[in-house]
Amino acid sequence: MMVLHHGWRSSASRRVRLCLEEKGLSYQSHVVDMAKMEHHSPDYLKINPLGVIPTLMHDGRPLHESGTICEYLDESFPDPPLRPDAPYERGEMRNWIRHIDGLIGNLIVFNWRHHLQKVAKQWSDEELAEKMKSIPSRERQEAWLRVARKPHTEEERGAARTRLVQLLDKMEEALAPSGWLVGKAYSIADIAAVPFVKRVEEEIAPDQVSEKTHPRVAAWWAIIQARPAFARANIGPFVTTDS
Amino acid sequence: MMVLHHGWRSSASRRVRLCLEEKGLSYQSHVVDMAKMEHHSPDYLKINPLGVIPTLMHDGRPLHESGTICEYLDESFPDPPLRPDAPYERGEMRNWIRHIDGLIGNLIVFNWRHHLQKVAKQWSDEELAEKMKSIPSRERQEAWLRVARKPHTEEERGAARTRLVQLLDKMEEALAPSGWLVGKAYSIADIAAVPFVKRVEEEIAPDQVSEKTHPRVAAWWAIIQARPAFARANIGPFVTTDS
Repeated sequence: MMVLHHGWRSSASRRVRLCLEEKGLSYQSHVVDMAKMEHHSPDYLKINPLGVIPTLMHDGRPLHESGTICEYLDESFPDPPLRPDAPYERGEMRNWIRHIDGLIGNLIVFNWRHHLQKVAKQWSDEELAEKMKSIPSRERQEAWLRVARKPHTEEERGAARTRLVQLLDKMEEALAPSGWLVGKAYSIADIAAVPFVKRVEEEIAPDQVSEKTHPRVAAWWAIIQARPAFARANIGPFVTTDS
Repeated sequence: MMVLHHGWRSSASRRVRLCLEEKGLSYQSHVVDMAKMEHHSPDYLKINPLGVIPTLMHDGRPLHESGTICEYLDESFPDPPLRPDAPYERGEMRNWIRHIDGLIGNLIVFNWRHHLQKVAKQWSDEELAEKMKSIPSRERQEAWLRVARKPHTEEERGAARTRLVQLLDKMEEALAPSGWLVGKAYSIADIAAVPFVKRVEEEIAPDQVSEKTHPRVAAWWAIIQARPAFARANIGPFVTTDS
């Protein structure tokens, strides 16, 4: 029995849903409402002391960190495989996940300015101070402070955009030999990049995911989106009118 | 044929040396002199675009990130194993490595104030500006700026010390079931913690690695140091009179 505590728009959650769907694993979905700070509630912190999403519960045990969860799923349910066989390629895969993880701050600059900013800017100073206390990591405290009181400037968004486009540059180079980031097949390295490319393509720098600018990334992205698991993982538009 | 590009005092290098020695693997040692910025030289950046140490060259291919390298070594040379068998415990191991990696900034506050600060504070403004250009990551640029011009304050060192002692608290809890961080045996999770505990014990907060304050960590540390691989990995005193 698996339960995924996740958010529909959370990049890390999207990775894990993609991995579960590629493997054809069924799971119970429990949506954690970040705007309501449910991920910092005492109950949630019991299964995830970092107060981030997602958390996978499997056989009653919690696991966090999307890269770790995806590799756990591949080791627990090896078929179809989502990791290359060769140790060196596995190392490259892990370094890709790590590299992309390190860019999450740049994605947050764009993602949190929608739903979360709408909610956070209405908090009183007292409410804000109270919520800060429940946030385990300093990076996330800073992210909430920014959306609540000091939204990122156009210049900051520009710098974040530049770093996300550099990810596409790096992918473009890596995709040359086989069309996949690592080895000769779709792997967790590709899955790690999906939520990033999705956001770049729909809002952050749409012209950068194209035949003209990054042809191999554009071809990769078309193939990824055509996979049946992509539809099932529900990686929809980030900004919708109903929320 | 393996070549390890490393530094004797670098925490990440110490992890990889421990792993190599536990496995009884022979390798050629190539010391990278950080004070001379050798890790930012064009030649080194070719094998490690992040400009950090260590890098392992094996069969002519470079691999970086100490956690990734250790897991690569365990997959390439499985005997003796340094990872638990169970997928869940492997996940826990990877999250331990990740968690400890995230604390490296706190260790740098203490480590860089010795040899590197001595060198960096003598740079002219022009030299400093020139060196900054060769440093790929912003975190590391900041770290060099601090040792060159604005050494960390006692208050900042106190905050870093607190976070490193919190690592011992977390270890103390995790060591309860078996005496090891994960599963029932010595693993890469333990190896990841070794360079941190070493520095806490010798300089940062010596009284915290003791029977009185963290008895399980103290027992674990005694057992680790008694392993033959520990001596061979040459994890010596950080500050010596000859350098």
